[in-house]
Amino acid sequence: MIKIVGFSGSLRPTSYSRQALHLAGQKAEALGAAVTLLDLRDLDLPFCDGTDELDQHPGVIKLRQSVEAADGLILVTPEYHGAVSGVLKNALDLLSFEHLSGKVTGAISVLGGQANSNALNQLRLITRWVHAWMIPEQVAIGQAWNAFDDEERLKDEKLDQRLTQFVENLVRAAGTLSQRA
Amino acid sequence: MIKIVGFSGSLRPTSYSRQALHLAGQKAEALGAAVTLLDLRDLDLPFCDGTDELDQHPGVIKLRQSVEAADGLILVTPEYHGAVSGVLKNALDLLSFEHLSGKVTGAISVLGGQANSNALNQLRLITRWVHAWMIPEQVAIGQAWNAFDDEERLKDEKLDQRLTQFVENLVRAAGTLSQRA
Amino acid sequence: MIKIVGFSGSLRPTSYSRQALHLAGQKAEALGAAVTLLDLRDLDLPFCDGTDELDQHPGVIKLRQSVEAADGLILVTPEYHGAVSGVLKNALDLLSFEHLSGKVTGAISVLGGQANSNALNQLRLITRWVHAWMIPEQVAIGQAWNAFDDEERLKDEKLDQRLTQFVENLVRAAGTLSQRA
Amino acid sequence: MIKIVGFSGSLRPTSYSRQALHLAGQKAEALGAAVTLLDLRDLDLPFCDGTDELDQHPGVIKLRQSVEAADGLILVTPEYHGAVSGVLKNALDLLSFEHLSGKVTGAISVLGGQANSNALNQLRLITRWVHAWMIPEQVAIGQAWNAFDDEERLKDEKLDQRLTQFVENLVRAAGTLSQRA
Repeated sequence: MIKIVGFSGSLRPTSYSRQALHLAGQKAEALGAAVTLLDLRDLDLPFCDGTDELDQHPGVIKLRQSVEAADGLILVTPEYHGAVSGVLKNALDLLSFEHLSGKVTGAISVLGGQANSNALNQLRLITRWVHAWMIPEQVAIGQAWNAFDDEERLKDEKLDQRLTQFVENLVRAAGTLSQRA
Repeated sequence: MIKIVGFSGSLRPTSYSRQALHLAGQKAEALGAAVTLLDLRDLDLPFCDGTDELDQHPGVIKLRQSVEAADGLILVTPEYHGAVSGVLKNALDLLSFEHLSGKVTGAISVLGGQANSNALNQLRLITRWVHAWMIPEQVAIGQAWNAFDDEERLKDEKLDQRLTQFVENLVRAAGTLSQRA
Repeated sequence: MIKIVGFSGSLRPTSYSRQALHLAGQKAEALGAAVTLLDLRDLDLPFCDGTDELDQHPGVIKLRQSVEAADGLILVTPEYHGAVSGVLKNALDLLSFEHLSGKVTGAISVLGGQANSNALNQLRLITRWVHAWMIPEQVAIGQAWNAFDDEERLKDEKLDQRLTQFVENLVRAAGTLSQRA
Repeated sequence: MIKIVGFSGSLRPTSYSRQALHLAGQKAEALGAAVTLLDLRDLDLPFCDGTDELDQHPGVIKLRQSVEAADGLILVTPEYHGAVSGVLKNALDLLSFEHLSGKVTGAISVLGGQANSNALNQLRLITRWVHAWMIPEQVAIGQAWNAFDDEERLKDEKLDQRLTQFVENLVRAAGTLSQRA
């Protein structure tokens, strides 16, 4: 069974990034994948300060174990200042090659303004750095404050189809490329 | 008098990024600039979670006031996973257009391996996003564990000259372009 | 008198990039700048193949002399495959540090689809590489086939204002930062 | 049988990019792949000017047919001004989604100075734009004038091993991910 782990780089009480993550997670489950969504608020991660204490932090341990056990990853980031959020990058900084290398990742960005690919481009270069795969498909959700309906679904059907296709390709590639023992 | 504010995106107890920042700060002072170096460990910044409480946090207030009062900024980042550290990005996320727009910035990256411009490229795009200037010159300090001598100076004379020229250009441009009232 | 030189990276018989360049050029002239717009079709540039013959090519000579004589540059690129066109990059490859270093540049991209900043980001990193300045402001013209009216003006007033502000900032910065002897 | 097509973005009479391409090609053949290396000098490609005549150009036709028939692509670029060469980008501009989508690509850059990942980063974003895969591994060959011995092999054994691993991963992924009918 394909294991997909996802997390989003927003700690906001109400977060469109989290909504996007949930939606993607549902679509992956509908395809038969085993999906684990981590909420970084629950993990209560510390800043990555290079100390040995990090290795004892329960949230860090859970993050690392979850990622290591996955075939594929869904990374969702709000685009702040045309880039990945510090919250998401800090979570990635707490992971290393041993957790991320060879994983199949897919990226979603959520923006207040018009859709753009700045944060997605960055995530692509970051995942490469740790020798993870990133699938060609990616999704940018612009004007996020107006993107979801009351049932937390995307109003724009085309965008929803694009998200569906993104998840299909991620799950398929995670099955094909996964090096999980 | 030209006001330069600097901070680095590392919280490590011993940090080459901080050493690089101090060195750059000294060079700016030698040129007659008024230099304020912030230590993010002292500011004890929270994660940017979009809540109103952020505006009351003493560290956030100090960061914002310091940056707003500056003509020029020195941003130092360790390069983690081929990118700006989450710590630095989170600090930038806590700042907005009103603090950063029009500032003259210069970027330094510090790497464990060979010098690269990944994190510097990112910082250039991030500062642009908030309509700040970034000077053309930039400095990447590779193999940082071997870059400094006992007196916290750069061993490589050419690299030190490059840092000097970087600071000269930053201070000059901060004087020329600053829109501080 | 501020000298502005501009060229666009499209050779298409009918080119929205060229229209955007003309419009920006007119706005710069209205501000009192001396504007020279080069048409790469007229220059008939060769591919940059590193041979000495390049230095004798009349188009290369004209390109280099024009750029060297400028305070500021307007670079317009169509976004092909999420990047600067090969035509524009080849023209930049024919220029070197001695022509470009210290120039004040501003970038405009023209896209068939939705506006994006991919090609603009690239141009920012390329100009930095040759130690040119790039102003923080930039303009992406999306759905270019529908962006201009019959008189070659931008239909979208806000976008036109943005272009005006872009040109104002470019001309001002070219005056402030220019190192032309 | 896995089909690999490669080309390099240098037209120089003596080109380290071409040497790197040949070396990668040999390694792919040693793994049993069917390798076709295109020399852009022979194809004598026109600039991509959007006219219909492009479709009749023998070099364009050969480029498109070769790429379309491939499972995997090796793209080699000299890094000019911290970016992909105009020559290579123009060749890519002459290709479209129908030729490139779904291909498995790997990128090599060749630099006069110290190794860097600027051009490789760009190629990664460009290939994504056309929905091609790019493998996580990539190779930057710095100080290329001193990188090869008289028999056109890499002097640096570690770099050569890295190139070997790059080719192995490319051929494997081309076999796994290829959507060629």
